[in-house]
Amino acid sequence: MEQNRTEISSLGEFKLINHLTKTFELKNDSSKKGVGDDAAVLEYLDKQILVTTDLLLEGIHFDLTYVPMKHLGYKAAIVNFSDIFAMNGQPRQLTVSMGVSKRFSVEDLELLYSGIQLACEQYNVDLIGGDTSASMTGLTLSITCIGEAEKSKIVYRNGAKENDLICVTGDLGAAYMGLQLLEREKTVFKGASEFNPDFAGKEYLLERQLKPEARGDIIVALAENNILPTSMIDISDGLSSELLHICTQSNVGCRVYEERIPIDYQTAILAEEFNMNLVTAALNGGEDYELLFTVPLELHDHIEAIKGVRVIGHITNESLGSCLVTRDGAEITLKAQGWNSVNN
Amino acid sequence: MEQNRTEISSLGEFKLINHLTKTFELKNDSSKKGVGDDAAVLEYLDKQILVTTDLLLEGIHFDLTYVPMKHLGYKAAIVNFSDIFAMNGQPRQLTVSMGVSKRFSVEDLELLYSGIQLACEQYNVDLIGGDTSASMTGLTLSITCIGEAEKSKIVYRNGAKENDLICVTGDLGAAYMGLQLLEREKTVFKGASEFNPDFAGKEYLLERQLKPEARGDIIVALAENNILPTSMIDISDGLSSELLHICTQSNVGCRVYEERIPIDYQTAILAEEFNMNLVTAALNGGEDYELLFTVPLELHDHIEAIKGVRVIGHITNESLGSCLVTRDGAEITLKAQGWNSVNN
Repeated sequence: MEQNRTEISSLGEFKLINHLTKTFELKNDSSKKGVGDDAAVLEYLDKQILVTTDLLLEGIHFDLTYVPMKHLGYKAAIVNFSDIFAMNGQPRQLTVSMGVSKRFSVEDLELLYSGIQLACEQYNVDLIGGDTSASMTGLTLSITCIGEAEKSKIVYRNGAKENDLICVTGDLGAAYMGLQLLEREKTVFKGASEFNPDFAGKEYLLERQLKPEARGDIIVALAENNILPTSMIDISDGLSSELLHICTQSNVGCRVYEERIPIDYQTAILAEEFNMNLVTAALNGGEDYELLFTVPLELHDHIEAIKGVRVIGHITNESLGSCLVTRDGAEITLKAQGWNSVNN
Repeated sequence: MEQNRTEISSLGEFKLINHLTKTFELKNDSSKKGVGDDAAVLEYLDKQILVTTDLLLEGIHFDLTYVPMKHLGYKAAIVNFSDIFAMNGQPRQLTVSMGVSKRFSVEDLELLYSGIQLACEQYNVDLIGGDTSASMTGLTLSITCIGEAEKSKIVYRNGAKENDLICVTGDLGAAYMGLQLLEREKTVFKGASEFNPDFAGKEYLLERQLKPEARGDIIVALAENNILPTSMIDISDGLSSELLHICTQSNVGCRVYEERIPIDYQTAILAEEFNMNLVTAALNGGEDYELLFTVPLELHDHIEAIKGVRVIGHITNESLGSCLVTRDGAEITLKAQGWNSVNN
């Protein structure tokens, strides 16, 4: 179906970078010089600077059988924005490095960059640099995002206090179920020339997996309501894993309630269809890119009033451990995923 | 010969990162928070910020047959420091992301990080974050370096003016000849269980290839002599390619003189032994990590007095093109390397 295929070697590295980045414009005052010199130049006179980086490898983090290049570019940018929001900051600049094998054409990379550009436009972020290289096998993406925050407004993982409320945004487990759905259809379609299954009624799960958003809207809402979380993290590896990061770094324990965990009905329906444990998907599925944060107990009514935020439990003394309280009142110790997790 | 081999999977991602980074300490005032949260936190109140990034892929940028892991870590850091120096800045922070296949042990990564740590100590740079992931094949390294400079002191590629002197530091072509030497020995040793050839008399070439330094000393010397270059770039892809970047971005031409190009005698001897063109190695070899810069003509005596700097030519009107003047007075148009260059 590919109508045009321009070999990357026909352009060369410098022309390729220029070709892919020429339609990007610098929008932020802090971006003084973007692509085209030995280094980009930024200026943050009265803010602190946030830096986060992610490495995305074909066959590990994404499968191009069912991930369109444009979606990959969008998601690769979003997951980095999410890390900046998780510090209560605003993403401002992005570098994109990629290693590409001969399998990829200039048109493939145009699609990838169109996804990156869309994310940059929607979140007001500037592409300021990167590195482009040949690769022996597959596609490698490495993205670094730089953001800003007022010093007094930065939220770390280590500030949770006993009796704080544990809050989560959106719903959990849908991205993981979307991945299960895509993996199943990939098996079904194996050998067929086109991957074009019918996902009617499951669109939300696919969107959560293929085109996630980062919760900048929540950062704005918290600021508008004068709420400064005591700790915050984004949910990329699953609720359990992230809660344990907050508890470990804050030297506290926690209780979260199974019945309070927000789950979309499409997630629940597919878990039933696939005979999978719904709570496990929500606790350990990962790639939700929602925010998990804690606020002082007295802010209960204020935080419950913010759309898209739900209180799911509270922080305890460290000696009580970190547990999920099931619907029948049992306490199950939370466990983090290991190296070989589903989304590693 | 490997006495200990700890599988990465026995630690898990978070313990691995902690294990590898626990001996790194933050040394710079601008580093407020390093490894361990969603993003690192920096503060640059009165300086501009420089950002550069490099992607290094096994089989493309390095061959572990003859590149020791510690050297790889050192060089991966150095090439990024070099980009910051090339803006007339000082490197301050580093993020290191890596994708590692099961072939690698925890001990391998300890060696890699010991090289990164050595480079960070020698150049006063802080490791502030990164991302660690499994990989399907081989080793992927992605490094981002952040540096600082006074706004008025930053040197771009686009400031070269007609009649400026073209200066280069150190000598050129040695890293490329070191690579040729290692590649030849690899062929000779093919199938042998140990790679341990005799490199007596060629140590400088190997050092230039395996353990390059970045020219922070020159940045200090220029400042001490109150010399602000009009343009600057580091020589990673070869003198020709970098000169063309300066000429294109500054809208000027240039003349560089073959007899002025600094070449070490070991480079010359090996080029003769291998029956290779010495000037080609110096012009296009790459990976020298020397600085190429221009200064106003009236600074001739001042710049010649700085140890390790040589004037190799001058900037001309754009209409005259960019040429090498050979020993017999012929003018050869400079050409950049393409995508499939030796060190891509």
